[in-house]
Amino acid sequence: MRSFSGRDILSLKDFDRHEYFRVFEIAERLEPYARDRRNGDLLKEKTLVTAFYQPSTRTRLATEAAMHRLGGHVTGFSDAKMTRAGDFYQEGIQDTVKMLEYYGDVIAMRHFQQGAPHEAAMHSSVPVINCGDGWGEHPTQILTDTFTIWRQRGTLDGLTWVMIGDMRMRTMHSLSYALSKFDSKVYVIAPDEMYFLPEFEKEARDMGFNFTRKEHIEQVIGEADIVYMEPVVQPDYTKSREEVKDDKGRTPPNYQVTKKLLFEKAKSDAIVLHSLPRQDELSQDVDNTRFQRYWVEAYNGVLVRMSLLALILGAME
Amino acid sequence: MRSFSGRDILSLKDFDRHEYFRVFEIAERLEPYARDRRNGDLLKEKTLVTAFYQPSTRTRLATEAAMHRLGGHVTGFSDAKMTRAGDFYQEGIQDTVKMLEYYGDVIAMRHFQQGAPHEAAMHSSVPVINCGDGWGEHPTQILTDTFTIWRQRGTLDGLTWVMIGDMRMRTMHSLSYALSKFDSKVYVIAPDEMYFLPEFEKEARDMGFNFTRKEHIEQVIGEADIVYMEPVVQPDYTKSREEVKDDKGRTPPNYQVTKKLLFEKAKSDAIVLHSLPRQDELSQDVDNTRFQRYWVEAYNGVLVRMSLLALILGAME
Amino acid sequence: MRSFSGRDILSLKDFDRHEYFRVFEIAERLEPYARDRRNGDLLKEKTLVTAFYQPSTRTRLATEAAMHRLGGHVTGFSDAKMTRAGDFYQEGIQDTVKMLEYYGDVIAMRHFQQGAPHEAAMHSSVPVINCGDGWGEHPTQILTDTFTIWRQRGTLDGLTWVMIGDMRMRTMHSLSYALSKFDSKVYVIAPDEMYFLPEFEKEARDMGFNFTRKEHIEQVIGEADIVYMEPVVQPDYTKSREEVKDDKGRTPPNYQVTKKLLFEKAKSDAIVLHSLPRQDELSQDVDNTRFQRYWVEAYNGVLVRMSLLALILGAME
Repeated sequence: MRSFSGRDILSLKDFDRHEYFRVFEIAERLEPYARDRRNGDLLKEKTLVTAFYQPSTRTRLATEAAMHRLGGHVTGFSDAKMTRAGDFYQEGIQDTVKMLEYYGDVIAMRHFQQGAPHEAAMHSSVPVINCGDGWGEHPTQILTDTFTIWRQRGTLDGLTWVMIGDMRMRTMHSLSYALSKFDSKVYVIAPDEMYFLPEFEKEARDMGFNFTRKEHIEQVIGEADIVYMEPVVQPDYTKSREEVKDDKGRTPPNYQVTKKLLFEKAKSDAIVLHSLPRQDELSQDVDNTRFQRYWVEAYNGVLVRMSLLALILGAME
Repeated sequence: MRSFSGRDILSLKDFDRHEYFRVFEIAERLEPYARDRRNGDLLKEKTLVTAFYQPSTRTRLATEAAMHRLGGHVTGFSDAKMTRAGDFYQEGIQDTVKMLEYYGDVIAMRHFQQGAPHEAAMHSSVPVINCGDGWGEHPTQILTDTFTIWRQRGTLDGLTWVMIGDMRMRTMHSLSYALSKFDSKVYVIAPDEMYFLPEFEKEARDMGFNFTRKEHIEQVIGEADIVYMEPVVQPDYTKSREEVKDDKGRTPPNYQVTKKLLFEKAKSDAIVLHSLPRQDELSQDVDNTRFQRYWVEAYNGVLVRMSLLALILGAME
Repeated sequence: MRSFSGRDILSLKDFDRHEYFRVFEIAERLEPYARDRRNGDLLKEKTLVTAFYQPSTRTRLATEAAMHRLGGHVTGFSDAKMTRAGDFYQEGIQDTVKMLEYYGDVIAMRHFQQGAPHEAAMHSSVPVINCGDGWGEHPTQILTDTFTIWRQRGTLDGLTWVMIGDMRMRTMHSLSYALSKFDSKVYVIAPDEMYFLPEFEKEARDMGFNFTRKEHIEQVIGEADIVYMEPVVQPDYTKSREEVKDDKGRTPPNYQVTKKLLFEKAKSDAIVLHSLPRQDELSQDVDNTRFQRYWVEAYNGVLVRMSLLALILGAME
């Protein structure tokens, strides 16, 4: 296995099976810090630079929280608008990286432009973690998702996944790569205009990502071990939080998961994952069912980032 | 006395006399860190999550500064717009809290919506500190104010307060609850349209908050031990900083405190408090008088937050 | 030499020769932390308050990175809009400082208004570092630039500088003061509308800052030891990053530096400095030439801020 020390985390395309398990194993070894809620000293001598060109709550804070749990320092920016006005948008990635690399020891980057973290990594003397690049990938999210399943099932093989929602999302790309590394049966449910791009589908199938397309969640919910969701509608910014809460009917039932559906048709140990925030595709009445695992993902997300940071900074082998 | 360990700080409605003094006593025991300007290690293993849905300078930085003085870590967001666009505004509090609770060990929340920190606390496995919720309350500010008075007078009993300005403000609500716990004589001076809401007034009076309404500061300034101020006019964003400085006459004299007024009519040991920023209700010529205590409040505000953080995180008993 | 302990860093006007070398010497003594990428403990007991009323990437992050490298804590704001809406813009500097001084042990301030850090320093009980004030000065940037030259050449005397671009920029002001302290030959190349203001030119000349004005970089590039650049055109926000990359012809050739120009006419050990971000005045083909020193400035910028922080906080003598 390649060493993680000094390595960029850009894509799951090149992650092999053993590497997933290595990340998970270290995550569990570091778990006592998170579980007992006490920051340690492992990365006390290190600084994380967050370079978020697009706002994020979960990914940025989970990464920062992981760094803090290991005693590390954090600097950076959480929005491109916090930097020198529009200048920064236009500055070449190389100029930016030739600055950021000296401000810390690892760069966690979210960017509106696909491939930006890859370009950053080419120029950087410190490792770069892709925290979401446009329509590209979101590897740390999928490492969190697969960790959640692995902890529940003890394996990532022999599972049936239903991927439902917008297949053009970066999470869906990284998940496709991940599932191609394991013995996975996959159903894909998406509106035509939100289906995989042909070049992505070809590449993923060539890698061994086999799946069957379906029209409606009801067709396959009975087989699913994991339902993995993304919205198919955009947030409606004309509505208040309260109005949104009562929103009904925006998402067609084909792409919607409700408590009723799960109790009537799902396997008793099926798991529903959603990277959140949600629209009305995932109904709130699922929250207090045995199927729900999206909240524990926040906790698991910290563990996985602790593991990645410790590994790529060479603090764990 | 209930233990502070693990407790939410949401309202002063349920704070009893002894609890104020406990907070003050711990604040003084921790004061050497702030006075000698050296961060300690007491909360080194803990992380504060700041969840500020509305911008704030004083409250957020005082809370962060307190955490740093005790050696702790800080993560979070200082503006809802730093998070995933409008999505986050609309996300249910529960979804948000089921993420934030894993990113640290205490959540300090400011929210534009009254009651949001209370809702957060219902769902959170870590303590929540209300750093101002809409028109609701602002308990840490009033703990700072009462600490400032207590350090000056050695007591919170037997004092005469003049509350002046907009009574609908969250500070005025928390102060009303606080004063109901002590032997306080209170005058209230506010324009009709900025008077307490009837349901608040009834509740506060039922709790023992007795006060007399007056029209003009001149009627009662001679009796005041403490003048507690909030603006009655809004910031005029069409004006520059310099123009604002010379602003005169926006605030009616009924609600205005000047050096002239204080020297001519106030008791020699009267104290003027203002949570700042100010409009022209508090004239700048008061800054260098013996009555002014609003600047030392920044220092006291750090002490009080150090105390609260240490207490609710169980580092002090 | 005056002690640095407790001192404000507001201007280079009053920096004498020996003080530059003191800053540089301490920077090199602290370099192992940056070079070996391990944060130390020197400033562990201290908190830096960043008060950035204008967005900045390089200056803010370099200062924060320096604080982290020395084990310190950081709080503050990176944009005036993160604070209480417009209120804060209008709040007097004194009210603001009478708060910030208690939130940490040194204040690093960028402000859109010239002289704001000086006014802050008047009221502050902790040292203030000017991180750029309007059209005023930018001392820490120029300390970084001169440190870069000093490390390269071993001296700051006997060098020929070409200052090219907008002479009204704060960097150009601080550089003028700096060069007046050393044996410097200086050429200035700027459009008429971007030339020094008469009062600044008079003051600088009176301090011993001698220079000759030229029209075109080609006239003097052969003599230059250092070319110090600022843009003469504004960012074009109607263009994307990619379009900007291919931008040509916005900057007149008089104020432009290219690989061709350098290889054909520059001394073999000439150095090109630019505080970045750039427009098209500095062509990207210079990046991989021996003349380029603007990227190492990010690293040197951290060293210089480490030195300044350690000195003014009294951790180094």
